[in-house]
Amino acid sequence: MTQISSPARFDVCAVGNAIVDVLSPCDDAFLTAQSLVPGSMQLVDADQSAALYDAMAAGVEASGGSAGNTVAGVGSFGGRAAYIGKVAEDTLGQVFTHDIRAAGVHFDTPVLADGAERGFGTGRCLINVTPDAQRTMCTFLGAANQLEPTDIDTALIGDSAIVYLEGYLFDPAPARAAFEAAAAAAHAAGRKVAITLSDTFVVARWRAELLAFIKASADIVLANEGELAALFETDDFDAAAAQLAGIVELAAVTRGADGSVILCGEERVSVAAFPVDKVVDTTGAGDQYAAGFLLGVARGLRLEDASKLGSLAASEVIAHWGPRPMVKLEVLASQSGLTLQA
Amino acid sequence: MTQISSPARFDVCAVGNAIVDVLSPCDDAFLTAQSLVPGSMQLVDADQSAALYDAMAAGVEASGGSAGNTVAGVGSFGGRAAYIGKVAEDTLGQVFTHDIRAAGVHFDTPVLADGAERGFGTGRCLINVTPDAQRTMCTFLGAANQLEPTDIDTALIGDSAIVYLEGYLFDPAPARAAFEAAAAAAHAAGRKVAITLSDTFVVARWRAELLAFIKASADIVLANEGELAALFETDDFDAAAAQLAGIVELAAVTRGADGSVILCGEERVSVAAFPVDKVVDTTGAGDQYAAGFLLGVARGLRLEDASKLGSLAASEVIAHWGPRPMVKLEVLASQSGLTLQA
Repeated sequence: MTQISSPARFDVCAVGNAIVDVLSPCDDAFLTAQSLVPGSMQLVDADQSAALYDAMAAGVEASGGSAGNTVAGVGSFGGRAAYIGKVAEDTLGQVFTHDIRAAGVHFDTPVLADGAERGFGTGRCLINVTPDAQRTMCTFLGAANQLEPTDIDTALIGDSAIVYLEGYLFDPAPARAAFEAAAAAAHAAGRKVAITLSDTFVVARWRAELLAFIKASADIVLANEGELAALFETDDFDAAAAQLAGIVELAAVTRGADGSVILCGEERVSVAAFPVDKVVDTTGAGDQYAAGFLLGVARGLRLEDASKLGSLAASEVIAHWGPRPMVKLEVLASQSGLTLQA
Repeated sequence: MTQISSPARFDVCAVGNAIVDVLSPCDDAFLTAQSLVPGSMQLVDADQSAALYDAMAAGVEASGGSAGNTVAGVGSFGGRAAYIGKVAEDTLGQVFTHDIRAAGVHFDTPVLADGAERGFGTGRCLINVTPDAQRTMCTFLGAANQLEPTDIDTALIGDSAIVYLEGYLFDPAPARAAFEAAAAAAHAAGRKVAITLSDTFVVARWRAELLAFIKASADIVLANEGELAALFETDDFDAAAAQLAGIVELAAVTRGADGSVILCGEERVSVAAFPVDKVVDTTGAGDQYAAGFLLGVARGLRLEDASKLGSLAASEVIAHWGPRPMVKLEVLASQSGLTLQA
């Protein structure tokens, strides 16, 4: 299972919303006042984004985007990663491009040249982080939303062991078409297709479509327990896990501080979360888990070892502000005695 | 000493280079390869800035600028602060303006409307942080450099207990003139003038001019021990401290992990650094020390208590990436039993 027969140039190629994050501390009262559901991600338009930004505390900016974070994590492990996503020709687009390339990730999706003029500047995610380290996100997709099937580099995907698709792309129609094209290109080349469910509200909006897509096109699913519950409309974890395992070859379900569970047919592998001195900001935790897990699977590691790489990467990113590793995960893995080779 | 006779609307009004920081991790070999002196700040032009950014690791962006960081810290303590500095009409300028206002700081210096077109975008400081948490800075001043005497709001300065001037402004001539105008406005209103020496290389470049300015116009000097040594060209700390105490009413000299020493005439007050679990990034440590110290002085606290506020603020900012507090210093002060009222 998950053995890739022919050598691939890249371990993971991700297709996602290219987004720069703005992270600010807030309290619960702020979320209430702004009518935000704690822990959720919602889409906002340019005016809503500007109004919320005005109200937010001072913060920090960092390249983000769920799948972008994941491939940056793969690069930080020393893995070979590529990314497909859309930015505009503006300052945030330069920041996104710099950061993902500086993480060692191949990225050459054409920029949306006239994006800023048409109101599609580089996507921005306003993230308010409460003292319990939980993030609540409002995303203005901008240029990210303009990803089209023609942006899918099928040769690149065909040369990647795993193509990783962001569930958030089920929202905008042209991007969802791009997403379908990417999955088709991967399978045509005999590669694996992974998808993350991304968010409980995404699952609620597109439940039937996601289930159909998983059954038809996905080999690997990543989800957290909330998203899993939403997908099968049950809070019974074991029942939902069994249903997921029945429709996909391999799945990894994260459970926050309780670690993660890998599902593979009848097999269940539970892996604990890595201990963290102080959790500061959970932004990117799931994305970094995916980085370690997918790299491990692409490299043919045992599922438990792949999952441990995920837990390690998640523990690094939740100990500081921002959604991407600030130290080399390759070094952390070595210090923790984790291998990256099968 | 340092009693302000008439009530002032603001505790501190700072005049500084309005800069957005880009912070990336690096190793010592990177600094060597880029011919950068560890721990220094140097000015670079737009092309040098772009070339260095291309070579830098993925990072985070955060509003910075030494004096800007300080007034953001004053605001975080619940103090009343104002800022004078120049940004362009671009994304980084919007970020700087948002963040400083979100910290509760009054900021209405006119933006440089045609800055971006003339090659004077908002200033950017590229900061490479080594694993020992030391920062090495390359600053493209851009719009910050275009601060002029007409930008100095003399009514605002006259209504501030202390005007705080950034030594970095000794570099660009028009900004230095603005700086002189600010000092004059403060004294005309019977207020105190504070200056930070900012950087050993600034001191080396402008030693005679800084000494003349301090003697003629400054009531309070902030420096670290390296800058103090450069100012008096001696590594004998006590001798240099005595010389500084001989030309200025009050001074605070920071000594990194060894805390700080306050100089006031013959009096010497030593205050320990606050313990920190793990030092991540020392960017902004001196700026936050200045925030606590100046607010304490403006409020008429005992020198030791003012210095403790400085140490507390510095301890918060060195424990995370970025130059400004990520939690309310007012809350930290309360938790540490430190008072903000005389």
